[in-house]
Amino acid sequence: MLAIDKAASAFLYTQVIELIDRRISSGELRPGDRLPSLRRLSSGLGVSVPTVKQAYLELERRGTVESRPQSGFYVQAHRRNALVRPLSAVEGFAQPAPVRCRSLIERVYEAIHRPDVVAFGIANPSMAQPAAKALHRTMKRVMARAETRSLSYAPTLGEPQLRRQIAYRYLDMGARITPEDVIVTNGGQEALAIALMSAARQGDMIAVESPTYHGMLELIESCGMLAVEIETCAEEGVSLGALAKALARHPIKACMFSSALNNPLGSCTSDAHREALVSLLESRGIVLIEDDVYGDLLFDGTRPRLGLCYSRKGLVFTCGSFSKTVAPGYRIGWLVAGKNDERARRLKRAFSCSSGLLQQMTLTEYLAGGDYDRYVKSLRQVLKRNAERMGGLIAQHFPAETRISRPRGGSVLWIELPRRVDSQQLFDRALEHSIAITPGLIYSPVKRFRNYVRLSYGHPWNERLEEAIARLGVLAAELAEPA
Amino acid sequence: MLAIDKAASAFLYTQVIELIDRRISSGELRPGDRLPSLRRLSSGLGVSVPTVKQAYLELERRGTVESRPQSGFYVQAHRRNALVRPLSAVEGFAQPAPVRCRSLIERVYEAIHRPDVVAFGIANPSMAQPAAKALHRTMKRVMARAETRSLSYAPTLGEPQLRRQIAYRYLDMGARITPEDVIVTNGGQEALAIALMSAARQGDMIAVESPTYHGMLELIESCGMLAVEIETCAEEGVSLGALAKALARHPIKACMFSSALNNPLGSCTSDAHREALVSLLESRGIVLIEDDVYGDLLFDGTRPRLGLCYSRKGLVFTCGSFSKTVAPGYRIGWLVAGKNDERARRLKRAFSCSSGLLQQMTLTEYLAGGDYDRYVKSLRQVLKRNAERMGGLIAQHFPAETRISRPRGGSVLWIELPRRVDSQQLFDRALEHSIAITPGLIYSPVKRFRNYVRLSYGHPWNERLEEAIARLGVLAAELAEPA
Repeated sequence: MLAIDKAASAFLYTQVIELIDRRISSGELRPGDRLPSLRRLSSGLGVSVPTVKQAYLELERRGTVESRPQSGFYVQAHRRNALVRPLSAVEGFAQPAPVRCRSLIERVYEAIHRPDVVAFGIANPSMAQPAAKALHRTMKRVMARAETRSLSYAPTLGEPQLRRQIAYRYLDMGARITPEDVIVTNGGQEALAIALMSAARQGDMIAVESPTYHGMLELIESCGMLAVEIETCAEEGVSLGALAKALARHPIKACMFSSALNNPLGSCTSDAHREALVSLLESRGIVLIEDDVYGDLLFDGTRPRLGLCYSRKGLVFTCGSFSKTVAPGYRIGWLVAGKNDERARRLKRAFSCSSGLLQQMTLTEYLAGGDYDRYVKSLRQVLKRNAERMGGLIAQHFPAETRISRPRGGSVLWIELPRRVDSQQLFDRALEHSIAITPGLIYSPVKRFRNYVRLSYGHPWNERLEEAIARLGVLAAELAEPA
Repeated sequence: MLAIDKAASAFLYTQVIELIDRRISSGELRPGDRLPSLRRLSSGLGVSVPTVKQAYLELERRGTVESRPQSGFYVQAHRRNALVRPLSAVEGFAQPAPVRCRSLIERVYEAIHRPDVVAFGIANPSMAQPAAKALHRTMKRVMARAETRSLSYAPTLGEPQLRRQIAYRYLDMGARITPEDVIVTNGGQEALAIALMSAARQGDMIAVESPTYHGMLELIESCGMLAVEIETCAEEGVSLGALAKALARHPIKACMFSSALNNPLGSCTSDAHREALVSLLESRGIVLIEDDVYGDLLFDGTRPRLGLCYSRKGLVFTCGSFSKTVAPGYRIGWLVAGKNDERARRLKRAFSCSSGLLQQMTLTEYLAGGDYDRYVKSLRQVLKRNAERMGGLIAQHFPAETRISRPRGGSVLWIELPRRVDSQQLFDRALEHSIAITPGLIYSPVKRFRNYVRLSYGHPWNERLEEAIARLGVLAAELAEPA
């Protein structure tokens, strides 16, 4: 057994982590094995029990081990496939490029709405355990109480009570905003669109993560802008060093980044990283558009602080939504636009006048009564379980070289397949079997991530899903074989 | 009595119209007077009864006379105020200009949502007789039938059954479109936005009517485009001669015109005018964006044919909505984009992903069962009565020189006040009395129509409305007096 060096500069608990990691990579500890008890390892290494506990919890956060109640910590069954630090498709940053993935995105969207398809291609977390009954009940109450009014136009910027509820939640997080700062939008996508068009014009360059949410890429393309991909890894998020270099080289107008969870990586950077990011950007007068739609869906219930909390110059746009957390079909999101507020208000008015009132009134009541918090708390557990199940089945059924992300929340796995596999071909073949997946190609403006796919576990778990995963594994294996 | 000249080139019935018009302007026939019976005038003039009838019906259409069941035709009580051919604020066409009315538009929108305000400033026809009960009932059925699905994402381009219902209605009108041509949007405003951004870019020139709907102007402004106002009158619509000259002078990229009813004029041009317009534009490769949101709301139930019906080259975008006819708060509209369909689909996806599903499913059922047609038929009658009542009260309470439009449908009156009245001042003073109006300034990119206001009668009629109209008259009279 390797010893702990109490004189070293590294924290004791990180030394414990390294030690466990080595035992796993050496095969001394194998997937499914139980880790030594806290007390045993503590006395064996000569460190305190809290130190070992801290190490185990961090290993759990990284997805290396899992805790089982009343039993202890175990090496994750599919540890061999961990994609903790995926090969970034970009080193540093890429050349500014127009986006070229729209026709594939259209096919992906079409596929998920086909009848009888297993829709792994849509990120729809709340459907893992839909809140339909409770929301419908709330909506009926609203209809009864405000029969005529609930049918009429909402104010352009949103129902005042809903704006208040949203602002309250941000205040809890330390963001200094008022209800008047919140603009209610038609889902998070309209918030992103308004933010981007408030901040930049045709021809401008926009920095994005690599990989990044395809909706951002399509927006950049639609506005005639250029995307600049920045190196991003699951553990550390977007590389601030690479970003600084890209900013020095190119006249980048804005950054459009995930705030809490990256889609598709499922990763979450630290608050400190976000603070440093905002500071880097604001010192250069560059806008950050942060996409926070997954912020309430971290499995462990922690709530990452927004970039907005660290903004000193008002250059941060924060985009949120109820589509991922509770009510996708309501199309209710929001935008906080900082010092670009006036322009953003005007764009909201010009693009869609207002958002649905009945849904806004329903959500207001659902939030105010505490239903939302209770629901999301329970949803997180379901999603976590689904992620583990899907990860386990992929480890079991997919080709051996497959690597799987360890999402910290949300509803998608990001999967690296053997190099030979073309994810667009896998998409086509899967669809023949009524399985809709998202090929990795659409997470980059120039179709990188050719051998990656994103799969969503935002579904009520059932045998059909399990069979579909097994089937995908077979198809991927076929494509992985030499022709 | 003037005689009819059977040898003249003018139709006999138009000679009858002219004759009645002269009797009215000479004072021989006064407001409220009964016109001669068909038979009496027929024998008096030596023309057929059908000829007289045709003349009377045309006079009724113009708002000069009104028919009262079992009684005959009467000179409109407020005939003296008719604004059949309003002074156009533009002769021919205006110089291309950036739009400069946004801060006033923002104030107008804010005002209509203040509590306890009489909201004459919002064009909300269906609120004259809300369909709330029936729609809520339908929505509850949908929730029960599709409990979980109704909460989820709609397909990007819309619920297939709703697209089918919309396409059916257009087929009835002779437009050759399929359900796949219909893109469901977040209200008519998003349809206009997508159309404009599909057809033109920053810096492009867009022709608009004068006056024109302020939402179009704000959109043009938001996209960094220039507006070119074209002479427009209530009887004849946009002047095709002036438009042809403007097209010859300036590189106009697209026209954004009302299709059925002009907002604020309430006027409706003939199908032949629309045909000639489309032919003029398509022969030059210029796009027409037609706003048809009021097409189902002509008082007499006629359905103007769309410009789309006359398109040969696919350069017509048609924008529709359920916001004016039945469900403003649902935010469901649609777009037919012709040969720009692919770009429009992409913009819909990029701007808002999809529109509310529950509302789409509800509207599908409401349309399919015939409820919509029955409701709109009854709504038209209520709106017509409200228009007459409001016109009568304005004639009674407003300064003598006031002139009032004779809307053919919809929910607004366009009112020309004495030259001295500044409608922005009237807006401010009215708001002090909890009355929200729309100043004419926002119907032109450069704040023409200074002494005009638009008032909406899309409200359940009541005494409070009547008092508010009387109060407005007093305020207008005060502003009309020399300082």
